[in-house]
Amino acid sequence: MAVKVFGSPASTCTGRVLFVLEELGVEYEIVPVNMAAGEHKKHPHLARNPFGQIPALQDGDLVLFESRVITRYLVRKYGKDSGLLKETTPEAAAAVDQWMEVETAQFSSPISTLVFQLLFLPVFYSGTTDEKVVEAELAKLGKVLDVYEARLSKSKYLAGESYTLADLHHISYIHYFLTATPHASFFHSRPHVKAWWEAISSRPATAKVTAGMSFK
Amino acid sequence: MAVKVFGSPASTCTGRVLFVLEELGVEYEIVPVNMAAGEHKKHPHLARNPFGQIPALQDGDLVLFESRVITRYLVRKYGKDSGLLKETTPEAAAAVDQWMEVETAQFSSPISTLVFQLLFLPVFYSGTTDEKVVEAELAKLGKVLDVYEARLSKSKYLAGESYTLADLHHISYIHYFLTATPHASFFHSRPHVKAWWEAISSRPATAKVTAGMSFK
Ligand SMILES: N[C@@H](CCC(=O)N[C@@H](CS)C(=O)NCC(=O)O)C(=O)O
Ligand SMILES: N[C@@H](CCC(=O)N[C@@H](CS)C(=O)NCC(=O)O)C(=O)O
Repeated sequence: MAVKVFGSPASTCTGRVLFVLEELGVEYEIVPVNMAAGEHKKHPHLARNPFGQIPALQDGDLVLFESRVITRYLVRKYGKDSGLLKETTPEAAAAVDQWMEVETAQFSSPISTLVFQLLFLPVFYSGTTDEKVVEAELAKLGKVLDVYEARLSKSKYLAGESYTLADLHHISYIHYFLTATPHASFFHSRPHVKAWWEAISSRPATAKVTAGMSFK
Repeated sequence: MAVKVFGSPASTCTGRVLFVLEELGVEYEIVPVNMAAGEHKKHPHLARNPFGQIPALQDGDLVLFESRVITRYLVRKYGKDSGLLKETTPEAAAAVDQWMEVETAQFSSPISTLVFQLLFLPVFYSGTTDEKVVEAELAKLGKVLDVYEARLSKSKYLAGESYTLADLHHISYIHYFLTATPHASFFHSRPHVKAWWEAISSRPATAKVTAGMSFK
């Protein structure tokens, strides 16, 4: 039986789950949750995720939410040997955890605020971009990318010489940032960051999913 | 050789690491990082954590940062059978991951803002609490705790019938919230949340570490 992903292919968080499913070749079905109609804040979705957000996953009797929990579960269940998590020794696992947590704790906040201000707010909510917020968050993102540039000058991927969940978790927001804001130079002016993005964005699984990620 | 924790025993993030070390009975040494003197933003600390934050961990040649990465590593390395992570099957591991990620993604933001506004800002920075922010974040925290109340009416701990990292990651901020703000009723008025806090705060490892967590 195919696993079910409750969400929307264009959503950044749902994207994270889809990248993994495509990498692993796991059969899945997307069950749309109509956010415009508020379905995410009503039953039955609240029984999947009491915080009323997408995505959620159903695999047989198991229901999970939070995209980064779902990706970890999928790799453990269907991709033990994929190399996407390296849970062979505590040290190898920690290298992947280290950069997954950097994505969560350092990278995610500025880039999601920027994508919201520069794309979602004007396009969806007919709002006006707050240029002061953009300036402040660009400064934060720049500092984070300086750390990435230094890191990626030492290894091809964030957690070492091979592609892992730590890289994968970054894709959705970079995709929107590059295609829908005028600040692509933040990524392209840093040569190791640029090469890293080229490597991860050209993966067949990435290309297949990002083809469906557009709001315009 | 004892592991080294670079940080400060009073800091919420350092606390997370100390709770685990005490639970597991691992020998450790705290190496103070003088934040008032800006040591966290200078070498050698930047070589431990390029984002210039505490805590960091050194275990032999391995250096890690991000408190939640360190706790996971310590359990895998020194507490495989502690039950703090249940990495026996993908499903059991996901139950712990689920509530660890809820702490990170839902709980941490309102409670850390509240502890900042009501404790750190006035006490450290001679600043004035922004009552509007407090009101908004209390509302968010209340909604999160409603989900916890429902969850904890079904199992004694967040991830099931035994204590795990998912519970442990919550302690630092709840400790400060209860001891240093006038809003303890947020936890005490919800009977299952209250019983949960009583169970986790009375553990010997918790009590030992929280005894050193004070800013007054
Ligand atoms: N930390 C969650 C975030 C999920 C999230 O923010 N989802 C958005 C769509 S990308 C959503 O459901 N927003 C509606 C809401 O928060 O009410 C995850 O990674 O799954
Ligand atoms: N996500 C990090 C957060 C670390 C953090 O915010 N540490 C604080 C002390 S509790 C700090 O170093 N603040 C100084 C700064 O951010 O510049 C973790 O969990 O380790």
